[in-house]
Formats: sequence, C-alpha cells, structure tokens
Amino acid sequence: MRKINFSPGPSALPETVLKRLQEGVFDYNGAGVGIFELGHRTKLFMGLVDETKDRLLKLIGASSSKYEVLFLTGGATQMFSVVPLNINTKVEKSAGYLVSGHWAKVALAEAQKFREVVAISSSESNGFKTLPEQNLDYSKYSYVHITSNNTIFGTQIKDTPKTADVPLVCDASSDILSREVKVDEFGMIYAGAQKNLGTAGVTIVIIRRDLIDANLSGLSTSLNLETYAKSNSLHNTPPVSAIVSVHEMLKWIEEEGGVSAIEERNTKKANLLYDSIDSSSAFSGYAEKEARSKMNITFKAQTEELEQNFIKFCESKNIIGLAGHRSVGGLRASLYNAITLEDVSTLVNHIKEFDAKNS
Amino acid sequence: MRKINFSPGPSALPETVLKRLQEGVFDYNGAGVGIFELGHRTKLFMGLVDETKDRLLKLIGASSSKYEVLFLTGGATQMFSVVPLNINTKVEKSAGYLVSGHWAKVALAEAQKFREVVAISSSESNGFKTLPEQNLDYSKYSYVHITSNNTIFGTQIKDTPKTADVPLVCDASSDILSREVKVDEFGMIYAGAQKNLGTAGVTIVIIRRDLIDANLSGLSTSLNLETYAKSNSLHNTPPVSAIVSVHEMLKWIEEEGGVSAIEERNTKKANLLYDSIDSSSAFSGYAEKEARSKMNITFKAQTEELEQNFIKFCESKNIIGLAGHRSVGGLRASLYNAITLEDVSTLVNHIKEFDAKNS
Repeated sequence: MRKINFSPGPSALPETVLKRLQEGVFDYNGAGVGIFELGHRTKLFMGLVDETKDRLLKLIGASSSKYEVLFLTGGATQMFSVVPLNINTKVEKSAGYLVSGHWAKVALAEAQKFREVVAISSSESNGFKTLPEQNLDYSKYSYVHITSNNTIFGTQIKDTPKTADVPLVCDASSDILSREVKVDEFGMIYAGAQKNLGTAGVTIVIIRRDLIDANLSGLSTSLNLETYAKSNSLHNTPPVSAIVSVHEMLKWIEEEGGVSAIEERNTKKANLLYDSIDSSSAFSGYAEKEARSKMNITFKAQTEELEQNFIKFCESKNIIGLAGHRSVGGLRASLYNAITLEDVSTLVNHIKEFDAKNS
Repeated sequence: MRKINFSPGPSALPETVLKRLQEGVFDYNGAGVGIFELGHRTKLFMGLVDETKDRLLKLIGASSSKYEVLFLTGGATQMFSVVPLNINTKVEKSAGYLVSGHWAKVALAEAQKFREVVAISSSESNGFKTLPEQNLDYSKYSYVHITSNNTIFGTQIKDTPKTADVPLVCDASSDILSREVKVDEFGMIYAGAQKNLGTAGVTIVIIRRDLIDANLSGLSTSLNLETYAKSNSLHNTPPVSAIVSVHEMLKWIEEEGGVSAIEERNTKKANLLYDSIDSSSAFSGYAEKEARSKMNITFKAQTEELEQNFIKFCESKNIIGLAGHRSVGGLRASLYNAITLEDVSTLVNHIKEFDAKNS
C-alpha cells in the first residue's frame, strides 16, 4: 500500500509520473526496450534530452540563446567542487558564499580546497533560524554562491540577492521549479533532481553560456562543465532512466499549469501546515517566521518524547518521513511539488488530533 | 513490442529483473514508496546496500575482509580521474597503462593530467585487432591499468597479467561478472553497471581495502574513494534506483547458478555467433581469433552497403543494436549477461538467411 511520504529527498513523485515510468519498464514509447535499457545514442533518447532541456528552460523562463542545460551526476556534493573549479577561475577575486545552513557551509568548505573563498555573511550564530544579511556589496567577488532553500533548518531565500555583474550561483536542490524566479538574476542554478524534479541520480545545471569556460586545463573531464556543454551531456553514458524521470516530471508540471500554478499550490500547502502548527499547543515552528521555507516545514514538540510519539502516531496512519534531520532533531515535513494539498490536509488533521490528546 | 537488443550499452536486462523493477515502481518490497522515491537513509535501502555489496563479493569470489565495494557515479569516464588521483599517489613511480583499445587510450590520457603515466604496451598499430604484449616486467610501476574487454574492437584480455606486488587496476565495464576471475590478482576492479550489472547511473568499484587512502588532501570529495568507503557509499544521495537495479541483477545472476553458469552460457553464445560468422561467405570477424571477446562480437560484411542492408534486414525482424561503433563502423553484437542463447540463435538464423541471399 502507498504511504504519504513527507521525506526530505529522495521524495514522492506524482502518480501520473510513476504510471508513465512503470509503463515504460518493458517498452518506453515504442522503442521496444525499457527505460532501464534505453541506449543513450538512440534517436529516441537524444530527442528526449533536447526536449527535456527545452521544456526546463521554458518552464523556468530562460532563453536558450543565453542559457544552457547540462545533466551531470554526483548530486550537489559534486557541484560543490564543480562550481569553484569552473566559474570565473581567471578572475582574481575571492568567491563569496552566503552561509544560510549546513549545505551552504559544506559548499564553502569544498570550494576552499580550490581557490580563495570568503563567507560573505552567515546566520549560523542564530542556529540558522534566520537568513544571513543579504543587502551587501557583492562587487568584490568573482562569483556569489547561495543555497536558496535550506532543507535541514527549513529556511528559504525568497528575495534573490542583487549581485549585478557578479555571477550568482545558486544551489536550488530543494526548491527548483517550486516557485517562479527571475532567471536573469542568476549565472547558474543547479539541483539534484530527487526532490522536485525526478529521481536520484542526475544533477540539473542551468548556466549562462558565457560562464562555460572552454579553456580549462588539467581538470578532470567529469568535473569540467565544457565536457557536458559540447556533447549535449552525452560525452559518456548519462544516467538514462533518471533523465527520463526528469522528462516525465517536467511534462507533469506543464500539465498542472506550469510553475505559477505549482507555486500557488505550494504556498497553499505551506500556509495550511504552518497555520496548524502555529495554532496548536503541542507544536511550534523552528525557523523564524520571515525566513520560513515553503518546501521544508521544520517544527518541534515540547519534548523529544512527544516528537517520537507523533512520528509513531503518523506512521500508524501510513504517513512517513517526518523526522527532522539527524543533526538538529525535531520534526520536518517536506512539501515538494508532488505532495498534494490533500496530503497536507491529512497531516494537518493528525496534528489537530494529536494536539487535542496531548495538550 | 519488445525487441531483441544487441546494443553495446545501456543494454538489455533480463525479463525477471524488469518485472521486479516494474512491480517496485509504486511500492518496493512493502516500503509504501517506489524505487524512484526510496529514501537513501531508510532502513530498507541501507539494508539493500549491504546486501548488494555482500552478494557482489560472494559472486565475484572476494573476501569482505580484504575488499570493499563502493558505489559511485559518472561512469568509467569519472573513474579515469579517480584512479590516478587515489591509487598509490605517494609511490614515486609512473603509473603503467596497457593500451588495448579506445577507452584504454582515454583512460591513459586522463591519468596524464594528474601524474606521470606510461603506455606499457599497445596494440594500436594493429588497429587494436590484437592484444598488447603482456608478458612484461611490471615492477617499475606504481599501479598497472588494464581494460579487460574492449567494447569497440571486440577484444578481451582473458589471461590477467601477473603484476605481483604492483596493484592491478581493471576497467571491467563490459565484462564484469560475465566470467570467473581470480579476484586476488586485482587491486581494483571498476565498471559502469549498464552492460552486465544493471542500468546506467551507477559505477561499481571493488577495491582492496589497503588501497583506499585516508590521507588525501585537496581532492574533490566526490572523486575521493575514502568518501564512499567511510560512509558506506551514503555520503550524499546515491543513485538509488540504479543501485536497486544492480541489486536485482545480482539476485538474478545467483538464481541462474552464479558466475560459472553465466560464463558457460556466455561461451556458448559467443561460439555460436563466431561459428556462424566464420562459416558465412558474406561476413568475417574483425578482431584476430586469439583476441576475440565473448561480450562484443565485431564483424564486417564485404561492403558497407551490405552492412547497412543487414542492419535494416535485422530491424525488420525486430532485432536492434547491431551497428558497429561510429569510430570503426562495421557490425557488432553485444552478448552481455541478459542476452539469451535463444536471442543469439535467432540472430544466427538471420545471418544464415542473409548470407544465402547475398553470396
């Protein structure tokens, strides 16, 4: 039996997408072979790569003459190396990192292996319950790196920092295509697919074409963005079935009305859950209200025991994925694109029931 | 309708494996979520990782006290960097590469970015139709790298070079678990999963534990083998569904009788096809007989036109994947583990029919 899955990622996919993937296991779109067997140099797959790129650019509102889409592997972790090794490496300025959470810190530490890097501002002293100062002078950096949504602490940078001519690089692993953004404000957006865009195993990169450096030497082929740009991400065998999952997920987002419709629903979902937490006696939110994420709703109960009881109570109702990250504890519900308003209503009803019993 | 798929990879999977994957799209083994949604920190998946490692070591005949199994991404291409950046980097000797084909050359060129590397021997002057000289003194190298099976040219190193104390590193992307090997002769074996072991998106590494260097600094986290060793390959989100495919494929190999039974069948398949090519008038083999691969059977017809006609003839009979690699042309049938003796018989019948008409 299917469970309602509020996991932080890998996370739930829409049933429409699962149905299409399931139908494609033995024979995908008449290829005579399934999604797990599909050759990357077949006409079908090469067409699918082009279509996926076009669809992504269209959904996010980027022009294909200005931006390129690349498919990598290794997740955001690999991108933490790829970014400092590829972006404006010949500009003799420090790279600047906004430190808004755990992964932002990890990204900064990885970049320090390869070049001069500074933490522009940080909210660590507030336990990452707030966002770092963003109204700053960015002109002295070679690029600026932000993590738009902080999965562990449940905060989200809703107003993109204005970095003017300095390329803004964004790890959007946990909120890509969950809301509308002005793409032109970004030099590069990257994301693991496994939260809002598909299954684990493929990393999506949207990058301004002028930031792809064709003259990097001595760099591992697999970490060099030009490898992917000049081969249409087919330099070697890509993660075919994971890319198919992204393709099907993008089609679904289109069918649902595009990113504006998805954002509207995500806002409703988050408001519904935050309201129920705020009006309960047993629970309270973790992040400061103005910093709250619409993707990862972090909250806590009065005691750890109560939190464990709530998790068990929900599991008995076929709801999973509510434990907070092991580094901070507490509770967390991740409301990525595939989570329905009905799923959230069900959770809210259980919160009310649990609250009535325990307060 | 399913086609018989002789593609060089990504390639066919057994119907038993496809059935299990298909059943798992909505709910994998009672998790309440499917293979594309399964969390990497769930008990189910962490258990599956352990089980997959155990099964692989058992099937290949390696002791878990001596060898570790790691799951990476980025395919063999990424391993071409990972190997020189990780293996015996403090040993002040050149790394030695046996150059037996295209991918062996690419591996060597990539390694040269990072350290002193020499081509120990090469068969390039013979158009890679033969194998390079292997009866050599390997003592002067920090490690020796071979490509056990050459997918493009259709040759295979059947007798593993004896490198004594020098670690032998083997790219076994196109013949891992297709035949029995003496694992103790290898320091490291790596392979993309998409030919004999599962779907594209995960790279399998079997490595002697003492070769994992815990003191590498300045290296990208994602290229450092210790990252994977110390986290049981769960440092960040791994390619979950691709690992599930490997898990199911290994179970299938076990059920089929293990590697010795698989090897016996692979030998029969290859002999059947080579015999039909050798006894035909229209076709002839590409590689020299003593170097022939049991995995990729490369052959040609008297003219390119005839080759194209043969490919079209087979496509009309629902057989695909027979074109040679774009760099060498000709014909190629890849007989990986999932290809049945019946599939090969069908191809052989078409070869006979085509031969009778065209000679």
